[in-house]
Amino acid sequence: MTIEATKSKYNVIGTRPIRHDGYDKVTGRAIYGADIKLPGLLQGAILRSPYAHARIKSIDTSAAKALAGVSAVITSADFPGAHDTLIDLGEGAINFRYASNNVMAGDKVLYKGHPVAAVAALDKNTALEAAALIKVDYEVLKPVSTVMEALKPGAPIVLEDLEGQDLGEKIDGHTNQANHIRHEFGDVEKGFAEADIVIEREFDTAMVHQGYIEPHNATATWDEEGRVTIWTSTQGSFPTRRQTAGILRLPDSSVKVIPLEIGGGFGGKIPSYLEPVAAILSRETGRPVKLLMERTSVFESTGPTPGTWMSAKVGVKNDGTITAATADLRFDAGAYPGSPVGAGMMCVFSCYDIPNTRIDGYDVVVNKPKTAAYRAPGATQAAYAMETVVDEICQKLGMDPIEFRIKNAAKEGTRRADGPIHPIIGAIETHEAAKASDHWNTPLERNGSDGKVRGRGVGSGYWFNIGLKSAVTISVNEDGTVALTEGSTDIGGSRASIAMMAAEVLGIPAEEVRPHVADSEGIGYTDVTGGSRTTYATGYAAHDAAQDVVVQLRERAAKLWDVEADEIEFANGSYQSKSDPELRLSHKELASKLGSTGGPVIGSASVDPEGAGGAYSTHICDIEIDPETGKTDVIRYTIVQDVGTAIHPSYVEGQMQGAVAQGIGWALNEEYFLNDDGAMVNSSFLDYRMPTSLDLPEIETIIVEVPNPGHPFGVRGVGEVPIVPPVATVANAIHDALGIRLRTTPMNAGSILSALKAKK
Amino acid sequence: MTIEATKSKYNVIGTRPIRHDGYDKVTGRAIYGADIKLPGLLQGAILRSPYAHARIKSIDTSAAKALAGVSAVITSADFPGAHDTLIDLGEGAINFRYASNNVMAGDKVLYKGHPVAAVAALDKNTALEAAALIKVDYEVLKPVSTVMEALKPGAPIVLEDLEGQDLGEKIDGHTNQANHIRHEFGDVEKGFAEADIVIEREFDTAMVHQGYIEPHNATATWDEEGRVTIWTSTQGSFPTRRQTAGILRLPDSSVKVIPLEIGGGFGGKIPSYLEPVAAILSRETGRPVKLLMERTSVFESTGPTPGTWMSAKVGVKNDGTITAATADLRFDAGAYPGSPVGAGMMCVFSCYDIPNTRIDGYDVVVNKPKTAAYRAPGATQAAYAMETVVDEICQKLGMDPIEFRIKNAAKEGTRRADGPIHPIIGAIETHEAAKASDHWNTPLERNGSDGKVRGRGVGSGYWFNIGLKSAVTISVNEDGTVALTEGSTDIGGSRASIAMMAAEVLGIPAEEVRPHVADSEGIGYTDVTGGSRTTYATGYAAHDAAQDVVVQLRERAAKLWDVEADEIEFANGSYQSKSDPELRLSHKELASKLGSTGGPVIGSASVDPEGAGGAYSTHICDIEIDPETGKTDVIRYTIVQDVGTAIHPSYVEGQMQGAVAQGIGWALNEEYFLNDDGAMVNSSFLDYRMPTSLDLPEIETIIVEVPNPGHPFGVRGVGEVPIVPPVATVANAIHDALGIRLRTTPMNAGSILSALKAKK
Repeated sequence: MTIEATKSKYNVIGTRPIRHDGYDKVTGRAIYGADIKLPGLLQGAILRSPYAHARIKSIDTSAAKALAGVSAVITSADFPGAHDTLIDLGEGAINFRYASNNVMAGDKVLYKGHPVAAVAALDKNTALEAAALIKVDYEVLKPVSTVMEALKPGAPIVLEDLEGQDLGEKIDGHTNQANHIRHEFGDVEKGFAEADIVIEREFDTAMVHQGYIEPHNATATWDEEGRVTIWTSTQGSFPTRRQTAGILRLPDSSVKVIPLEIGGGFGGKIPSYLEPVAAILSRETGRPVKLLMERTSVFESTGPTPGTWMSAKVGVKNDGTITAATADLRFDAGAYPGSPVGAGMMCVFSCYDIPNTRIDGYDVVVNKPKTAAYRAPGATQAAYAMETVVDEICQKLGMDPIEFRIKNAAKEGTRRADGPIHPIIGAIETHEAAKASDHWNTPLERNGSDGKVRGRGVGSGYWFNIGLKSAVTISVNEDGTVALTEGSTDIGGSRASIAMMAAEVLGIPAEEVRPHVADSEGIGYTDVTGGSRTTYATGYAAHDAAQDVVVQLRERAAKLWDVEADEIEFANGSYQSKSDPELRLSHKELASKLGSTGGPVIGSASVDPEGAGGAYSTHICDIEIDPETGKTDVIRYTIVQDVGTAIHPSYVEGQMQGAVAQGIGWALNEEYFLNDDGAMVNSSFLDYRMPTSLDLPEIETIIVEVPNPGHPFGVRGVGEVPIVPPVATVANAIHDALGIRLRTTPMNAGSILSALKAKK
Repeated sequence: MTIEATKSKYNVIGTRPIRHDGYDKVTGRAIYGADIKLPGLLQGAILRSPYAHARIKSIDTSAAKALAGVSAVITSADFPGAHDTLIDLGEGAINFRYASNNVMAGDKVLYKGHPVAAVAALDKNTALEAAALIKVDYEVLKPVSTVMEALKPGAPIVLEDLEGQDLGEKIDGHTNQANHIRHEFGDVEKGFAEADIVIEREFDTAMVHQGYIEPHNATATWDEEGRVTIWTSTQGSFPTRRQTAGILRLPDSSVKVIPLEIGGGFGGKIPSYLEPVAAILSRETGRPVKLLMERTSVFESTGPTPGTWMSAKVGVKNDGTITAATADLRFDAGAYPGSPVGAGMMCVFSCYDIPNTRIDGYDVVVNKPKTAAYRAPGATQAAYAMETVVDEICQKLGMDPIEFRIKNAAKEGTRRADGPIHPIIGAIETHEAAKASDHWNTPLERNGSDGKVRGRGVGSGYWFNIGLKSAVTISVNEDGTVALTEGSTDIGGSRASIAMMAAEVLGIPAEEVRPHVADSEGIGYTDVTGGSRTTYATGYAAHDAAQDVVVQLRERAAKLWDVEADEIEFANGSYQSKSDPELRLSHKELASKLGSTGGPVIGSASVDPEGAGGAYSTHICDIEIDPETGKTDVIRYTIVQDVGTAIHPSYVEGQMQGAVAQGIGWALNEEYFLNDDGAMVNSSFLDYRMPTSLDLPEIETIIVEVPNPGHPFGVRGVGEVPIVPPVATVANAIHDALGIRLRTTPMNAGSILSALKAKK
């Protein structure tokens, strides 16, 4: 079931046109990073560390360089040595020096798969052969893989130069604790004292990967003026420009990034891995160089989401009122600081109105790949802790879990536990829609066939969404169509949603807007496609640019009719004289007259809006478990979500469904499985099992629309909050089925059988 | 000698920075149309007519289609049949139906090389093999190759459906005369009656080709929504879009044109030849298809400049005052109407102030490739007639040829012989500069070695230049550089000149503007790079877009300082408070604060300016001829030209020198040499001999600057007028050396020997 969004209010928004890039994507004609071919192109290969933690004593590249067909072999010595500068990429900050060391190891390798050298050669096989000829002398060190091990005194130290922080104080001596911050409001002790029930639980979650289909890729040229051109699949050409420039110590504008189509990112294609390496190989060879990752490297060397240790404590009165809550979130950052623990802290309690709260967050380095954003980064883990504790409380209170959430729901004016005050939000409306859903009102048949048992779980989630910078220009063609240029790379259908907002303003069909993703020199600065910001902020820019077009077209109509521009009214897609009803031209008619009234019209806008609205989602999951084998099947799943306004409901539903699918995989199957040496041993899609369409039922979607007052069309952002509740929701369903509470992910067959055994 | 232009007035304009695309072009890294590779790309080949004139009785493609590896074979039957619509492409108009028949012959082939079928196959050799298997049954017809033959009663009729016009009246019956128009002012008979000397001469010029280095190319995809994407080397992505859409009967906006670098065009890369063919091959195969011409096809099947028959008659008083002039210009259009005779008529008398004039112009179809623009199209031929008659008059009067030209020069307020009144122009200043030149003041040593004789000639020329539509957007980077997006493809260094004008406005170095040529969906409608309009009109747009940036930056400064925007002054590259001298930020400083004052700034402008200013050029040429062999060498050449303002003097000089080189080739060597069957027999660069750098001296350039009041920086346009005088100037030098007047081009060794023999 879906609500056919806002059809009455808008002409284009809320409809479901075929996406502008649809045919290209479906037929395979769309050009992705790996498709790029350039004259004189060299192929690259990267030699990666077999060890999770080791000191590099020496690297001998002579045999590799001597191989016929090899054009260059580089190591970190060929990098300029980036400065210690922290920059924020929208979803996650990086320090250029660490980013440089991450793309090419310095004196130590910090995780299995860490690059230590790279080769450019006439063909890929020669490059691989040369990479195998590079001799690296390692002093193998003991690795540390989990947050709690890393925080222990005497743990192996990942970064000797790390200056750890604890509540604003610098930590003396070596540490793996990059940071510990705290948000505290009210009086937590008093709040717990007022509670009738207090539950505190601890959790462990495994590191998981976004699992995008398309591996990372980059092709680069470095010219004689020191200008670098990069072709790549990226979530943002400008952030890729900034990272590449920072690592290469070039001015931003010396790097041009040409974004190709992108086969999934989910946050993982914000960081740059191959771009600076390809650039330096090009600098050394004078030719374009292409680097492609294979799947193993994607798993081992790009940014997954952290494994965590968490605890959550919630106190409630017998009437169901939450009186206090605390959380301790300890996230592994991977090999360099910068886990999304901050975002987890922003979300952990934000579905609720809780008077007394304290949240501690730890950012901890370990010998695993540097983590990156993964769809609502940090919030899924945090919700796993909070929402399963809430479920236990509801069970103890004998209270309906949706009623409990409505009773305690955050609303306009509620202070979020990390500080800000909520504007108009849809938490209650989302819960009410869940309560009214067919799923919730259909009793679960608790016994499956062959002794299988069933359970139902509920979970909720919050994501704050972000704004940031976006630019759009719109050119009017004489046939009335318009060309829309945007800087946001299109991952999930944003060409369509952005075009639709422009079409709505201009009074033309969505198909008559031709959206175009420009390179970093073809449009104004635009932040990443991430943070659920694209439809919000780039749509905002499209709205403003279209308004700019309307202003100019009004002037043209005024010129045609020899009246003042303020004598012209734009309404219902027509420009008309306020005084003479005969003087009236549609957008299309007026567009055909641009050539004779001063030439083409271009509208433009750049925005940095501050009204991003938080998003809520409530999930209902039915599962069926075979107690003999522990095999778990999701048999029904409904997601209810406040999207503000659904611009293109099909792509909103697609985001909701895709995120749930990922969340179910995270809950039941996925994990970085490390051996005793700290090395990932399941780095393929055969061994790292993600759910396929055969594993899942059709995910049912219910779109709730509580328009965001901070956006001209009420957009909130859609892509992230749907992945927040699934892990907790599945855990709650498992409990409902089997009476066991699993607090470690993945909750796979082995975990279920162990828990059942322990229960007996 | 060159004048270091306007250095005192401007900071950037008049300097000579390295062009932005320089390194890419010099190192071979720049990507031209032939470099494009796409996944699944098919290679195409075109079967062309061996006959200059024939009826196609049938085409049997079965054997070609049956060849392994062949994906599609198409003929005109696969084309939609374009409408009869005349559109103006800036330099030359086309009728879509004729344009369609030109890219793929209908029931008749009209010139040798006319396409009759096309193939797409897995590789080029298979495509060529398949093309050779196509059986075409021709009924060979008698061809007609010259204007005067074509106008004779009973001549073979090229186009049976041509509706000929004569002075506004429709011609009854079949004709090759597409049109005859006339411009007449004053009383010509009275004017000639007042003259003391009247000279009337007739001329024949051969068809010549622009001779750009890079052959034509096009790669196309046609998707399931009927959208076509074209990668090509073109003088204008929007005009290519319009032609392709018109021929394919698609809306303009269904065609996207991605312009690659272009290896010369000179007007010849305005028409589309391969684009619609590649698109239909893609439609038939569902895959991208690439077509490349070889040199023979470039000569035989693209648009050269017309061969002509002309007469010119000039009357003067003994004091040197011109009293009347008439011209009859008959241009062959090639196989379809649309020769540049109209432009020739606009230029033939426009160096002079003549009270009584009549100009007749004929547009005549013949069995040769459809002509296209070639640098000041039509004006070189017209000047050949007028300037050699003027030279003969000066000789008869015993008058200095420069003094004669100054005495009769057009000036502000003079009526041009085709109607318009001249605005501020530099005809007199150009002649004065020629008179003052080192070349003119250095007496010619009349005897060369080994019996060679020398002569000096003078000639002048006019070109009106055009404006048309251009769009530019400018985005400000936080490091203070700006990205400039333009729609004008860069043939002769226009990235540099456009960037320099933006830099001048913004108060930054030229290097800090990064110019970028967008595709047809990345910028507003922009007309061809041609008509000497790019630096003028696109520069105008760059100026306006930069002004738009300044306005927005002033607002940002006002925001920073919390004052009104009109309190901020922009001067000498700094934004400063009018009241507080402490408040002052350079462009670069202010740019770094955009992120925190509302996000990026984009300026944009689209223009259709009407103030294009006419350009004048006067040439002095010294030649040395061996009377035994007729071999002619240009031993010194000086070009003097009013450019308005020289934005980048090096590229101005390059345009002047390049045009002179082409003009000398046209004068002395080049021609389409046809056999008795009307077929070109010299279609290679070995047989069609263009001058190389070894054949020519360094061309001396004198830049004259009479700023054009119709442009913010005084730009007139530079690229075309320098090719107008050379043919006449060389002819006048030959007369000076040998006393013979050659009135047929090329004036090659054979012609010279024949004329010498006739003289004896």
